[in-house]
Amino acid sequence: MEMVKERVLSGMQASGRVHLGNLVGALQNWVKLQDKYDCYYFIADWHALTSGYSNPSAIRESAKDLLLNFLSVGLDPDRCTIFIQSRILEHAELHLLLSMITPLGWLERVPTYKEKQQELKDRDLATYGFLGYPLLQTADIIIYRAKHVPVGVDQVPHLEISREIARRFNNFYGEVFPEPEALLTEFPKVPGVDGRKMSKSYDNAIYLSDSPKEVEHKIKTMATDPARIRRTDRGNPDLSPVHQLHKVFSSKEEQDYVAEGCRTASIGCIDCKKILIKNVFRMLEPIWAKREELIKNPDMLQEIVDKGNEKARKVCQETMSLVRKAMGFY
Amino acid sequence: MEMVKERVLSGMQASGRVHLGNLVGALQNWVKLQDKYDCYYFIADWHALTSGYSNPSAIRESAKDLLLNFLSVGLDPDRCTIFIQSRILEHAELHLLLSMITPLGWLERVPTYKEKQQELKDRDLATYGFLGYPLLQTADIIIYRAKHVPVGVDQVPHLEISREIARRFNNFYGEVFPEPEALLTEFPKVPGVDGRKMSKSYDNAIYLSDSPKEVEHKIKTMATDPARIRRTDRGNPDLSPVHQLHKVFSSKEEQDYVAEGCRTASIGCIDCKKILIKNVFRMLEPIWAKREELIKNPDMLQEIVDKGNEKARKVCQETMSLVRKAMGFY
Repeated sequence: MEMVKERVLSGMQASGRVHLGNLVGALQNWVKLQDKYDCYYFIADWHALTSGYSNPSAIRESAKDLLLNFLSVGLDPDRCTIFIQSRILEHAELHLLLSMITPLGWLERVPTYKEKQQELKDRDLATYGFLGYPLLQTADIIIYRAKHVPVGVDQVPHLEISREIARRFNNFYGEVFPEPEALLTEFPKVPGVDGRKMSKSYDNAIYLSDSPKEVEHKIKTMATDPARIRRTDRGNPDLSPVHQLHKVFSSKEEQDYVAEGCRTASIGCIDCKKILIKNVFRMLEPIWAKREELIKNPDMLQEIVDKGNEKARKVCQETMSLVRKAMGFY
Repeated sequence: MEMVKERVLSGMQASGRVHLGNLVGALQNWVKLQDKYDCYYFIADWHALTSGYSNPSAIRESAKDLLLNFLSVGLDPDRCTIFIQSRILEHAELHLLLSMITPLGWLERVPTYKEKQQELKDRDLATYGFLGYPLLQTADIIIYRAKHVPVGVDQVPHLEISREIARRFNNFYGEVFPEPEALLTEFPKVPGVDGRKMSKSYDNAIYLSDSPKEVEHKIKTMATDPARIRRTDRGNPDLSPVHQLHKVFSSKEEQDYVAEGCRTASIGCIDCKKILIKNVFRMLEPIWAKREELIKNPDMLQEIVDKGNEKARKVCQETMSLVRKAMGFY
């Protein structure tokens, strides 16, 4: 007897290129999940509009980069479903229907609402769509009647509102949606080349689409312990962003070796960085190779997306006929 | 050379049965417009959810009543396009896209927003969907790139926000949407049987689906000039709701006759009402007859709606591919 796999859904916003933080914090986990679960992974291009509406061509570029990287890192279209949010109109339909039963207060109280407005002060985010972000996310999730959503801790409040909206729908119209549960995973924090959290908005990211030369340059020019001025000065690895990256990408032995070398001044910062570069390259090389291969094959990329869209749409259509029936539409 | 007709769009919310006020204030005008313009008329069932989300089965019933009455009053599916809002997912897609560029303040400042919340105090209208009502209406209109929208004076602020949102879209992404213009029409005010504006919420309406007996009873039991207690008392027609209805449904001669008869007590209230009943019947009888005929033919009704939906969807798909292209989607 074949076991029916539980469904998992996750998406990535098409608002920038994929960087090492996304790889370690999400994509590698997605790859792991694809055999155990029935996984739906999507490129969230509508979401990118919530804060990027004034520059939509960047969204298209980012969507292309996401697709290439989803495949390059090892998502396998035969073992998971990869699709593009904006091609599944049913997401917009459910978003509209859910809007009718969603109290404004619930949306206004999502913690990230005010935070992100603060963070992106240069953009006008006092829009209806930006306020509705968690609602669109809810529609994205529950339309697949997904059991699990792999999220980081910071996304838990968003999932909580999705659960509340699903519950409210079920109360009004009858049981259609399971309440999605967080599939919490601990990820190592990936600092950027300046030591702050790796983020496209800090301009401190190493991108999967960077060339080997760019990656090497970015690491070589990283700051280290500012007190270690000369090669012969002893350093404190805990104050060096390079060492933080070692913690993510290097073996325990290497970590100990460079830490000790730093403290005793037995190795220089260049030596330390070379080891990091080697390890980052080892992780990126198969991704780069796969990417090169994929880029040559735009028809295949299109086919993968078309097939994924079709499969996702079929699930959504099933859900929406349950929804329309529950609500008693004509 | 065939002239291309300008497109007109209008809809009616599926939140109650069609009454004489709707007939005189909208549907008769729609019938007139169907030869001069390329008319798209729709049953706004999603709109009905904005305030009626807790009782959606009423929306389905109302949608059926609307369809029957659209056809009974003389809308001809060969000369206009009749469709159901909720069957055209592209409306929801455009609604979502427009949400991204629509300032919250624009929606909060629509005059009917606070008014309707006051009016329907017993319902919880502090929802995201209720706030977004004018945005959904905007999507409904501009997705047809309609030139004209037949509106009453009270709908002008709604149309104004649609024009602003269309303009904002065009500014951001390039010229896709013409700004829709009001096709202002003066309609006689139709009072209800209690003299207030005819409205389902006042329970004072005469419905097209009322039986002749019900219509007769509703008019016969109407209040008249409260000072005219006995048949021999002279009355003031200006104080009688019956006379207000005469102004809409009776000829000038009959209006003069009953006004004079009231003032001189030469006719009684029953006589006055009998003339009104005769005239309302004369207007309703062909509608009733057509309705009887249509009810026997559910397959034909379904076919009309299917055909209308398909035609509407085709127009929407054309618009949405322009929209997606303008916004540069993947």
